[in-house]
Amino acid sequence: MTVAVVYPGSFDPVTNGHLDVIERAAEGFDRVVVAVLRNVSKRPLFTLDERLDLLRDATAALPGVEVIAFEGLLVDVCRDLGVGLIVKGLRAAADFEYELQMAQMNRHLAGVDTLFLPTSPAWSYLSSSLVKEVARFGGDVADLVPPAVAALLRERTT
Amino acid sequence: MTVAVVYPGSFDPVTNGHLDVIERAAEGFDRVVVAVLRNVSKRPLFTLDERLDLLRDATAALPGVEVIAFEGLLVDVCRDLGVGLIVKGLRAAADFEYELQMAQMNRHLAGVDTLFLPTSPAWSYLSSSLVKEVARFGGDVADLVPPAVAALLRERTT
Amino acid sequence: MTVAVVYPGSFDPVTNGHLDVIERAAEGFDRVVVAVLRNVSKRPLFTLDERLDLLRDATAALPGVEVIAFEGLLVDVCRDLGVGLIVKGLRAAADFEYELQMAQMNRHLAGVDTLFLPTSPAWSYLSSSLVKEVARFGGDVADLVPPAVAALLRERTT
Amino acid sequence: MTVAVVYPGSFDPVTNGHLDVIERAAEGFDRVVVAVLRNVSKRPLFTLDERLDLLRDATAALPGVEVIAFEGLLVDVCRDLGVGLIVKGLRAAADFEYELQMAQMNRHLAGVDTLFLPTSPAWSYLSSSLVKEVARFGGDVADLVPPAVAALLRERTT
Amino acid sequence: MTVAVVYPGSFDPVTNGHLDVIERAAEGFDRVVVAVLRNVSKRPLFTLDERLDLLRDATAALPGVEVIAFEGLLVDVCRDLGVGLIVKGLRAAADFEYELQMAQMNRHLAGVDTLFLPTSPAWSYLSSSLVKEVARFGGDVADLVPPAVAALLRERTT
Amino acid sequence: MTVAVVYPGSFDPVTNGHLDVIERAAEGFDRVVVAVLRNVSKRPLFTLDERLDLLRDATAALPGVEVIAFEGLLVDVCRDLGVGLIVKGLRAAADFEYELQMAQMNRHLAGVDTLFLPTSPAWSYLSSSLVKEVARFGGDVADLVPPAVAALLRERTT
Repeated sequence: MTVAVVYPGSFDPVTNGHLDVIERAAEGFDRVVVAVLRNVSKRPLFTLDERLDLLRDATAALPGVEVIAFEGLLVDVCRDLGVGLIVKGLRAAADFEYELQMAQMNRHLAGVDTLFLPTSPAWSYLSSSLVKEVARFGGDVADLVPPAVAALLRERTT
Repeated sequence: MTVAVVYPGSFDPVTNGHLDVIERAAEGFDRVVVAVLRNVSKRPLFTLDERLDLLRDATAALPGVEVIAFEGLLVDVCRDLGVGLIVKGLRAAADFEYELQMAQMNRHLAGVDTLFLPTSPAWSYLSSSLVKEVARFGGDVADLVPPAVAALLRERTT
Repeated sequence: MTVAVVYPGSFDPVTNGHLDVIERAAEGFDRVVVAVLRNVSKRPLFTLDERLDLLRDATAALPGVEVIAFEGLLVDVCRDLGVGLIVKGLRAAADFEYELQMAQMNRHLAGVDTLFLPTSPAWSYLSSSLVKEVARFGGDVADLVPPAVAALLRERTT
Repeated sequence: MTVAVVYPGSFDPVTNGHLDVIERAAEGFDRVVVAVLRNVSKRPLFTLDERLDLLRDATAALPGVEVIAFEGLLVDVCRDLGVGLIVKGLRAAADFEYELQMAQMNRHLAGVDTLFLPTSPAWSYLSSSLVKEVARFGGDVADLVPPAVAALLRERTT
Repeated sequence: MTVAVVYPGSFDPVTNGHLDVIERAAEGFDRVVVAVLRNVSKRPLFTLDERLDLLRDATAALPGVEVIAFEGLLVDVCRDLGVGLIVKGLRAAADFEYELQMAQMNRHLAGVDTLFLPTSPAWSYLSSSLVKEVARFGGDVADLVPPAVAALLRERTT
Repeated sequence: MTVAVVYPGSFDPVTNGHLDVIERAAEGFDRVVVAVLRNVSKRPLFTLDERLDLLRDATAALPGVEVIAFEGLLVDVCRDLGVGLIVKGLRAAADFEYELQMAQMNRHLAGVDTLFLPTSPAWSYLSSSLVKEVARFGGDVADLVPPAVAALLRERTT
């Protein structure tokens, strides 16, 4: 059996926490489709193309990982790709309750299951929005995101 | 890649909630090893052999599922089997915090990752201990556990 | 003693989860006043009149249930109606903390108590906003909301 | 409609937090049956008769409140009494998850609903076991329990 | 050793819950710097100067307390002031998870630790936004905020 | 003002997570009294003297840290020492709810406040009991506890 999973998100921008999930998924499964949500509700800092490029750059060395854009329902993406499993990182109990609601809706809609992968302790406090907030005020995020993201954040916020 | 997972527990006794996790794991992965903890801290209602038999009976029709006993560290079981992934069902945020602690310890000890699969809403309130408590006082648990478990519970508690 | 309760919300739109709470409240109490918040903070998908009509339609067969609109403080509605109890559905621990804060404020302001009724497992992942998001992208919500709501959602989102 | 509720517990011993729930239930409903679990899993500090007496003493002035002992399933008590609603106090989110599990089991077994009443902030940190622990080491619990309980705790722990 | 702490927030407006934290911090530490965030994400009801004045007025009698405005990263404020500790009030588990994320980021950025002080039960349900919502609809908040805040809220909301 | 804090626990045995809290408390405060509970409810693996020695050994280089044994109420220890602040490490939201209850009881009994210091992400999954469980089955805990503890655990569990 070839086991493929979809890892969805806004990735505005990708952080080391996201990469940790992708790397562990790539170790465990044959195929990991990173699915980038085209239109995020709040105005993104990075364009869709930038977000895709930064992810492709950061995951280039990982076998079986591909990066795509999507809009609409995630379960439709899963059906189109023939993938029956979603992977999500989990940082805290508060994450879990919202994510559980989404997971049960996705299972209800299309029988697609969600696997939760706990975040490594080292990145447990990371989120794209917190990284952007820190960067905006000149805080150093070099060890929280891939180098290309850090560089672009510096450019974009000065 | 053959993806194998270990699903550990006491299974004293197996419930429909456990079976739901096993069925969904069997759909998604090539091999599901259900690992039954030999010595549970509280005195079990069912012997190890009974717990193994009830599980084997309930999972007989599922391809790729095997049932074994274990004692000691779960990560040692994983290493012996050559399996790099643990699967756990998750019912509630309170479960998650304890399970997260175990998952991070197992990753620290042996690089073994844990995938959390949310429990189906229908079984979200089920646990082996609650089933035993209800059965002990004559409550009807026939639709909460496999038929053979229900029969044995009736015998054992009257 | 006649026991009356108020069940407040935005109901944009009413879901099967809301109806489950209303039905169980109607079983337990003499009078259930469903109170629909006139102005919700985010732009509603349905007008106040549509929200009231959909609720009245869905609860027509339930004895002792009435549907009203309100604005301002919920405790003022309670005082005007002579009702001393609020009912809320609870899905998860995360709900509980916010709702507890509101409940204690309402008790502080006017001595009005809040009774929390846990959501049926079958609807534990439902919310109006998730239903709208699914419907907007063409997902099938027919078994999550009353028929009239499903029809209007289809109209409104295509 | 006469609305009756059952309020179950070990009450080893009754605290001001329990009394607060009983008082508020007595205000809202016609009949409040306080049901005292005969055999609690850990060895109780007070006998069943002491627990019943202390509760009857503390609730003597409240109309519609009666105190009974029970063993077995709470839903059987409800059926025998013809009462369709359980009331529980809720202090914190962690309480909620366990109580939710019990509530959904009770609804599954016998269609009996559970209403959760949030604890008054003033008593949010109170529990029978914490009160006993404080009293055992000579801490002053006079303002946390009814006077008769405080007196008996002093006797019993010196 | 002189122990100084920073207590950050929007304080739009200061509530009795905030004052409780400040008073307890002033009892325990030599110096408490209340740091008021200049630009809050949502449009504040009170200007920065009003928020500063109301805080200074309410804390005038407390030794070692000073009130300043800040923008940018809190850890930069700490470094400029030579203060190595942040104090935050904690009301509930849900607060904790978000605050933990901030605390670990601040420790990562600048080695600044955060001390969490649990809110007094009496104010556990208070927040600036809930106070403003209640006041906007004519609810009485006189016993939830300092007198000067209550007066200004009445003015501003009628 | 000299700021002293008490850091209570069973320390059966001390872990790197405990040491992290002690080190950070020693950085922030003048005096840190580590208070070791004499009689823990479950049979401890290490005697009181062993627990004290391991802690003294591990904290020998930290200025202002002393290690004592206690029994009875922690607030009595605080009063005897003239210390008005307790420090606790916090790992997760589930910890918080129990600890909050204790903190509010201690404040009620003696006006003693509790400061919560979030655990470093690296040690967020550590507890004495989990370390003992891993060691008992031959798992390697050398990088989770001080060297002397690791040595003694190896001895004691083989």
